[in-house]
Formats: sequence, C-alpha cells, structure tokens
Amino acid sequence: VDDRELLQDVMAIIGKDQCLDDCAVLPYGDDYLVATTDMLHETTDFPPGMTNWQAGWMSAAVTISDIASMGAIPAYLLIAVGLDRWERLREIMQGAKDCCDRYGTAIVGGDIDRHGELTVVTTGLGRVEKDRIVRRCGSRVGDAICITGTTGQAQAALEGFHLHDTALFEPQPRVREGRVLGAAGATSMMDISDGIALSLYDLLTANDCGYSIRTVLLPLPGEVPEAAAREMALFGGGDYELIFTCPKNRLPVSGVEYHVIGDVIADHEVLADGRPLEKRGYQHRWE
Amino acid sequence: VDDRELLQDVMAIIGKDQCLDDCAVLPYGDDYLVATTDMLHETTDFPPGMTNWQAGWMSAAVTISDIASMGAIPAYLLIAVGLDRWERLREIMQGAKDCCDRYGTAIVGGDIDRHGELTVVTTGLGRVEKDRIVRRCGSRVGDAICITGTTGQAQAALEGFHLHDTALFEPQPRVREGRVLGAAGATSMMDISDGIALSLYDLLTANDCGYSIRTVLLPLPGEVPEAAAREMALFGGGDYELIFTCPKNRLPVSGVEYHVIGDVIADHEVLADGRPLEKRGYQHRWE
Repeated sequence: VDDRELLQDVMAIIGKDQCLDDCAVLPYGDDYLVATTDMLHETTDFPPGMTNWQAGWMSAAVTISDIASMGAIPAYLLIAVGLDRWERLREIMQGAKDCCDRYGTAIVGGDIDRHGELTVVTTGLGRVEKDRIVRRCGSRVGDAICITGTTGQAQAALEGFHLHDTALFEPQPRVREGRVLGAAGATSMMDISDGIALSLYDLLTANDCGYSIRTVLLPLPGEVPEAAAREMALFGGGDYELIFTCPKNRLPVSGVEYHVIGDVIADHEVLADGRPLEKRGYQHRWE
Repeated sequence: VDDRELLQDVMAIIGKDQCLDDCAVLPYGDDYLVATTDMLHETTDFPPGMTNWQAGWMSAAVTISDIASMGAIPAYLLIAVGLDRWERLREIMQGAKDCCDRYGTAIVGGDIDRHGELTVVTTGLGRVEKDRIVRRCGSRVGDAICITGTTGQAQAALEGFHLHDTALFEPQPRVREGRVLGAAGATSMMDISDGIALSLYDLLTANDCGYSIRTVLLPLPGEVPEAAAREMALFGGGDYELIFTCPKNRLPVSGVEYHVIGDVIADHEVLADGRPLEKRGYQHRWE
C-alpha cells in the first residue's frame, strides 16, 4: 500500500476537495488563507550528514514550498518537534527560524515532545488574492507544461554527486516564482516534492485532461551521466521546484527561470516521449 | 531537562510572546485567528487499550481544547498522521472527523507519512472576537481561580479506576464553556492538560501576580480514596478542563459547571493551603 492509495480512504471520510491541493484554501476577508501541514522524520526525510540546523531549515522549507505552489505569500509557521535528544532543539529551531526569516514568515507557535525518533511537523499559513491563486486543478488542453529550476538535483546528491548537496540539504522554496506565475496566468501548479512523474499523476487526478512531456526538454543535474540524470529528474524526490501549466500565449514569463517540458493534451493520461510514463517516485509505503 | 526548560531556548529564538498562550493570536479582519499545533504519539500519549478511533478523537480533541481555552470558536483542523501500520488510518481519521463534527470543525488538510511509531499532529485554527479573547496573561489580584468540570479523572483511569475511562479515552473539549467564559469576563484562561499544578505555574509565567488555592475546594474523581484523588487532580495529566480567573463580582457565571478553588494574590508564587505548591505534573523529560 502506498500513500496515494491511502489518500483514497481519507477522501472517503473528509471529502475529495480537501485532498486535491498542496494547501487547504479557506476564506480570509477579500483574500484566501491557505494552510498546509508536513511531517518529516529522521529515517525517511533527513538524509545522513544533514545537520540539525539543516533539518530545521528543511522542515520550514517544505511547508513554505507548498504555500509557494498556490501562488500565495507565506505568513505564519507553527512547528511541532518530537525530540530524541533535547540538545538538538536549539539548532533545529534556529534553522527553521532562518528559513522563515528568508521568506518573510513568522514562527508563531509550536509544540515540544519527547520522541524515539526526531520528528518535525510544520504547519504553514499564507495569504493569496482570489485572482492570483493557482491550484492543481485548472490545466487546459494546449497549455505548455513547465518547471522552475533543475529537478533531479536532490536525488543526485543522495546518489553521491556532492555538487548537489546544497539542493538536498537546504531546499529553496520558490516563493517569488510562485507569486510571479500566479500573476502571469499559470492555470495549474504544484511543487515537485516526489519527482516529476508523480507530480504529473497528481495533476492528472485533479484534472480531466492529460500531460505529455518530452524528456529531451528536461533540464538535468550537472556532472551526472545523462540516462541517470533523466531518471533522477523524473523519479527522484526532494527538489521542491514548481511544475505549472500556462497558456502558450502567456509565455515567456519574465523574471522566472523555467523550462517548457511538454503540452497539456486532451487524453486523460501521462505520456513521456509518446509512451505512458511509469507512475513511480518518492512514496511512503507499508507492507 | 523537561519541556518547560526547553521552552526557554525556544523563546530566545522566536520570542517570548509566541510561547505564552495555548494558541498563537493572529490578525483576521475585525477578529483574531487563533492557531495551535499538538504532537501525540503512541508510547507517551495513547494509553494501552485505546482504540484507533479514540486515538483520532483524542488527537482532534486536544487541539480543539487549546482553541476553547482562548474563548475562540474552532473552525478548521489539519492532521498529519505518521503510521506504523496502514490499516489504522481509516479508524483514526473517522475518530478525528467525529470529534471535529461534534465541535463544528472542518478537517481541511493533512499529511500521511510512514513512521516507526504512530504519531499524530493536529493543527487547529479558530476565530474569536477581539473583546472575547482570553489569554493566559490577564489575571488580577482578588480574582477567583476556577476550574470547569472535575480534574484527576484521566489520571484515575490510568491508575485503574475504570469508572473514568471515558474521560481518559474520549476527552470533551470545553468549547461552549470557553465561549461563555470569554463573554462573562474571565481575565485569564488555559486548559489543564498537564495537571492543575503545572497549569498554575504556566499562568505564573505569564502574569506578575500569584495564585493561592485551597485543596479542600477541589472537585475530586469519584470512587478514588481522597488523598489519592487530590494527588491526581493536582499532578495528573489528560483532563482538558479549563482553569480560569474571574473577578468575583462577575460570579456566578450561568450555564457553566465550575468550581472556585482559590484566589489570585499579589505575591508571585503558587500556594496550596498556604504552602508553596510542588511544581510537578505531566511533563516530557529527556536524560
């Protein structure tokens, strides 16, 4: 069983609409409040060699990335820390604080717990104008499929290409890019936390159309052999770039570094180079 | 080292004001938005014999209780579940959903994770009018100290008095009571999750005055010998009643079951029957 299968159970209980986007979307005066929560823990999320400061940074970054992916401005963060050793807390909090400071976010609350395994849960709140929000739903046939930055870097670092260690250990959420893309008319968007392939399948779940990419268009992590680099970009996790769709007459979007990697198509399927793309990537699994 | 000592480190990094109340208090149009997060996990928070449904109920209830303690109306809940066995998810989500339904709260998002130990983190958002919010800070010398309901029941259940199992396994957050007390002029309030003694010391941290209670006034859990019952009420955890202070000329407050247990005093100390009260209760500790 994997996490996307379990999500079906959750949808049956709390409703499908609550499960489609990177953030919940709530009324907030004339704007929307967006809210999201992420659980990270040592064995599956904090790679060997990561410092406590980086664990704190990453915990804040992944949640700020979810807010960025809605075209929203991050505002507030709550952080619950389950600590195996109390000595780790100060550096973890400082890392989270430094990441929040970088992105204009205030840490407003939290919880401290004793835990057998370091576990950090961050909850983020952000704000977005109603005409600038971008959801997973909204792709239109003929739109270009685009990604910010270069994916596959985090996976490359995990596989020993240390040139990319910073991408893995200190992800930079694309807040400014998300804001620009929302204003520029992006029709759908999410962050690529689990690889391009799973992100395309997540978009497929939220839309009636389909997605066709050409792998030759993928920007690839440097110093990695090409076939391996393509595998990392499609199926590796931990990148926190944005994937978005945009009408071609709205391109180019100035002020954002991005690559066009394919087209939104009418058929409800995900294709790479004309063939069905394997549905595989970073997932939690249970036996 | 205990959790309240670690909180000093956190205050130094993110600011003392962020750490004084049960919830963060954020601007929300003409009202306040309150936000809070709680981490629960199997070994320290879910007692033996608790069902998955009850674990879900309790996870939602503790966070709704924090919102109630501000005099606020709970509105939204996010839930991150770290699952050791995937089969547990459905009942946990149903328990959280049933608790949220009871208190008018919508589950709007979450995260699913694989974890070695069942870990549930709930984040709650609520709303409160500016003139009805009640914080930990605000006690005034001469106010009465009061508690809703009967404390010590959860601890009694843990120690084998099964009459009180429901209090332990299915805590009922005092949302209605918190709303009434905010309107009635309560000057300070918090929930009693870690026992009356630690709650009084938490109030002490947020105020310049002090607190003097008389143990003979404590409502005690039934069927427990009196000395043991008093110990449970003062130092046991898991009750989720409200402790509040209120000017005596505002008493009685109609529509709420409560007991007056003492007085707010000028000296900055916590007394029980005229002697300093031991600072002890349910706490997370690290060696």
